[in-house]
Amino acid sequence: MSEKTATEIEQEVRDWWHTGIIDMEPGKIHYGGYAIEELIGNVSFPTMIWLMTRGELPTSGQARLLEAALVSAVDHGPQAPSIAIARMAATCGVGLNNAMASAVNVLGDVHGGAGEQAASLYHDIANRIDRGVVFEEAVSDGLDHQIAEHGKHVPGFGHRFHPVDPRAPRLLELVKIAAEDGHVSGRFGVIARGIEDELLKRKGKRIPMNIDGATAVIYAELGFAPELARGLFCLSRSVGILAHAWEQTSQGGRNKGPIPRRMIWSYTGPERRPVPEGAKTECNKA
Amino acid sequence: MSEKTATEIEQEVRDWWHTGIIDMEPGKIHYGGYAIEELIGNVSFPTMIWLMTRGELPTSGQARLLEAALVSAVDHGPQAPSIAIARMAATCGVGLNNAMASAVNVLGDVHGGAGEQAASLYHDIANRIDRGVVFEEAVSDGLDHQIAEHGKHVPGFGHRFHPVDPRAPRLLELVKIAAEDGHVSGRFGVIARGIEDELLKRKGKRIPMNIDGATAVIYAELGFAPELARGLFCLSRSVGILAHAWEQTSQGGRNKGPIPRRMIWSYTGPERRPVPEGAKTECNKA
Amino acid sequence: MSEKTATEIEQEVRDWWHTGIIDMEPGKIHYGGYAIEELIGNVSFPTMIWLMTRGELPTSGQARLLEAALVSAVDHGPQAPSIAIARMAATCGVGLNNAMASAVNVLGDVHGGAGEQAASLYHDIANRIDRGVVFEEAVSDGLDHQIAEHGKHVPGFGHRFHPVDPRAPRLLELVKIAAEDGHVSGRFGVIARGIEDELLKRKGKRIPMNIDGATAVIYAELGFAPELARGLFCLSRSVGILAHAWEQTSQGGRNKGPIPRRMIWSYTGPERRPVPEGAKTECNKA
Amino acid sequence: MSEKTATEIEQEVRDWWHTGIIDMEPGKIHYGGYAIEELIGNVSFPTMIWLMTRGELPTSGQARLLEAALVSAVDHGPQAPSIAIARMAATCGVGLNNAMASAVNVLGDVHGGAGEQAASLYHDIANRIDRGVVFEEAVSDGLDHQIAEHGKHVPGFGHRFHPVDPRAPRLLELVKIAAEDGHVSGRFGVIARGIEDELLKRKGKRIPMNIDGATAVIYAELGFAPELARGLFCLSRSVGILAHAWEQTSQGGRNKGPIPRRMIWSYTGPERRPVPEGAKTECNKA
Repeated sequence: MSEKTATEIEQEVRDWWHTGIIDMEPGKIHYGGYAIEELIGNVSFPTMIWLMTRGELPTSGQARLLEAALVSAVDHGPQAPSIAIARMAATCGVGLNNAMASAVNVLGDVHGGAGEQAASLYHDIANRIDRGVVFEEAVSDGLDHQIAEHGKHVPGFGHRFHPVDPRAPRLLELVKIAAEDGHVSGRFGVIARGIEDELLKRKGKRIPMNIDGATAVIYAELGFAPELARGLFCLSRSVGILAHAWEQTSQGGRNKGPIPRRMIWSYTGPERRPVPEGAKTECNKA
Repeated sequence: MSEKTATEIEQEVRDWWHTGIIDMEPGKIHYGGYAIEELIGNVSFPTMIWLMTRGELPTSGQARLLEAALVSAVDHGPQAPSIAIARMAATCGVGLNNAMASAVNVLGDVHGGAGEQAASLYHDIANRIDRGVVFEEAVSDGLDHQIAEHGKHVPGFGHRFHPVDPRAPRLLELVKIAAEDGHVSGRFGVIARGIEDELLKRKGKRIPMNIDGATAVIYAELGFAPELARGLFCLSRSVGILAHAWEQTSQGGRNKGPIPRRMIWSYTGPERRPVPEGAKTECNKA
Repeated sequence: MSEKTATEIEQEVRDWWHTGIIDMEPGKIHYGGYAIEELIGNVSFPTMIWLMTRGELPTSGQARLLEAALVSAVDHGPQAPSIAIARMAATCGVGLNNAMASAVNVLGDVHGGAGEQAASLYHDIANRIDRGVVFEEAVSDGLDHQIAEHGKHVPGFGHRFHPVDPRAPRLLELVKIAAEDGHVSGRFGVIARGIEDELLKRKGKRIPMNIDGATAVIYAELGFAPELARGLFCLSRSVGILAHAWEQTSQGGRNKGPIPRRMIWSYTGPERRPVPEGAKTECNKA
Repeated sequence: MSEKTATEIEQEVRDWWHTGIIDMEPGKIHYGGYAIEELIGNVSFPTMIWLMTRGELPTSGQARLLEAALVSAVDHGPQAPSIAIARMAATCGVGLNNAMASAVNVLGDVHGGAGEQAASLYHDIANRIDRGVVFEEAVSDGLDHQIAEHGKHVPGFGHRFHPVDPRAPRLLELVKIAAEDGHVSGRFGVIARGIEDELLKRKGKRIPMNIDGATAVIYAELGFAPELARGLFCLSRSVGILAHAWEQTSQGGRNKGPIPRRMIWSYTGPERRPVPEGAKTECNKA
């Protein structure tokens, strides 16, 4: 039995769940102090995404740049595991919410983490510059550090399918315009271009920025923590995941596997052998 | 060995995965025929969501109405299982993508399906009207059919927390304006209000439309299939899920359970008893 | 502020979470009244699964039959969506727990529900017999009802890959032995064979029982609710899911898609077209 | 168009999915060379789990030790996030497979990873001993390295709820017996006890081994890779997850939140404020 008063215990339970995001009473729903009925129809969906993850409203220039990043990453086709998973799930007798969950779930370090990793790299280089290191050296040191810690694959640069990822230059162009208009500083765009230059110097060929490198520039410019680069990518890719799950539903199919049905997998294990007596459970032994 | 030619087999494999959503070649990404570099920075995120799920671009009036629905449903606090799950997951050592997946996954028939069910009810009533039944009768028959098939709880109406859900009247107002401006027909708003009236007549008190009932009006007005009402709700609620997972991450905590730690659950099962010999595996018997 | 006493409020919170499964105090963990230290090393894993889902310990005959069902359904290869999903997930930079979750998640009505559906069909036929209908008629009526409600595909019978599923006859043989030994009644095995006979009569060819039909016989014989047929299948298939996720991890690969990389999907949508001015957001218009 | 022959292309597709786990042809299902109809009814479920994850059959002594570990970790009550999630999911209108998925998904580094981490620590100490370091020093160095790399919390030791975890001594006892009987070497049990002694020396009080530390001893003794310690924990905990999801289903409830409904969360954000004009989308501005 507790020493606390009834009121203290009720408060303890309420405090177990505390949040600055949403305030609610019967008939009242406020996000960060803004009433829902004032937000609906007045602010854009990206503005709402910003408010929910940041606690404050963005300027219209910031919201537009966020919107561009969210639009850019919705889908990269069924060759991507997340999309293939969404489509296969849709043939297994689960709801769209479940298909979306199985798919979003795999946007991990390899499939969904490059933006977060690129943003961390940019921040590391920015910190070096802030500590007085000259630009080229900060970029080179940051790259060296990244490679030493995480391997030679530099997140946000290079693409195994696109020689030039058509999304990256367009996003960078928008960052440049936003910087000229004073909406963002532009420093992370400059740093990312510096990485491209350094990689060209080191490899003798251009390893162009990809979608993850470019959206990471935007998220860093807008002040999002690197972890949210992954979270925002998940929101964006959820659109493609939903679209493909829904298209597959309308195409039909039951238990769709990865390859046409007659092309079963290759087996590489041992040939048939009998179960030895010793492996059988006691009660099944002769 | 196949009778087919090499080209036919390659085509068979490609056709196993076919889609009208995205077309891709090295350096080229098109959605429904629109080049990604033309979409980025030019169209809104809701416009992109429409294009991905419908195959065509919306008018600006349609996109604004979709945006209002997406803004309205982002979060209903940690009392909702999905949000509590996202927050608990964030303390278990998984990524934001995983926390989002565990949470979106539970937006099932009960937690995320009311919009889909309400949209189906509206369509059923609309079909009765199209077949010549007069409005009040169509509403009443549709309600009777809904209750006979799915039970007395009418999806989209009534709220266990809000006497009046502040989101619903605002959304309905926007539908009315959009109808006046010719962006939508307005018929589903009228049908939903008809259900409210019929429920008032039957129960003697107003059972006001809730968020699911109101967003279902919008999705039906915009021509989305009822199943997509759930899918779009998942996109919207993913925003709140991400925000809460992220806030919990910054609050810290490890393995956060549902209630304060010293308040463990109530046990209602049998008292302690010994494991009988007969239940032990052979090799452990004396 | 609450009218309740401190003790009542604490109890209210504890009662919000009440269970007959597990009782715990510092240093004490009991399941259904049995101390964990007495269970460990003394009872089999299937016995523990029974205790957790049923609240009581099984006889050794019951436990052995449950074990056979659990062993039988662990894996059906990467052609099954669940296994392919587990393998793809393992290349995306998520943990084994996440790969397992994305995969188990798709064991829905189509991919994981046939056992539950078959068990329901058996129970329906058993209920008809209990109400005095003669066997052949009860089987035929049950089948008719199943087909009228759920379509012509009879859950638990027929296989698109195996002319005869090698798991089914073996499981049925074990049920027969268990019935002869008095461990189970055997009535659900007889009913399932009756369905096979009736299908032969109707179709002119044998539609042999598959793994789902056979495990459903066992779960029904053992008194598990039909819903648990799906739950137990999930436990069993989780083994294969884990094994394949782990094998894929050791094979390596990053972002493994469903088909070889050079064989991208077929695109069936509209040809390239420009984004019309009307679809652009206000601020991007000329 | 490919340069390859039809047969080569078919083989390429089959090779995209290759496995040593399962071999299948119509009417034939073999795991690691063993026919399914010989395994069913003859081998235990833990034996099957071993075969699937290791490729070979265990001895009966090995299978019994694995069984003890699997029995020991099935459930730790609704205070654990995974179990609470399973129960909440069960009230949201999703299937048991979905409830299991949302729950297993959160068995990440913090909630499900301690066994994997403890096993890695044991292996690190064993490797030091193999390189000639004397036992006490190897243990101390291993601990130092662990703490330097991952922080002061030593995985597998100490419990926030149980002063002594009743599962650990029982599991260690079984390892000791198995070592005496020659089923395992016993070295990892000795190493784990060495860590307990070293922690006692450093802290002045005993930090007793917990379930994760004890099952990690077993998995290490049995030759499982550390990553599989997490995978096997997921299999074991899936039993409790299923049991609680099922019990909650039978208790009923819709959209069960974490705390009793009248005890809503604490709000810590800004007070109500109006949406500023600048945050509104163009078309909504006056």
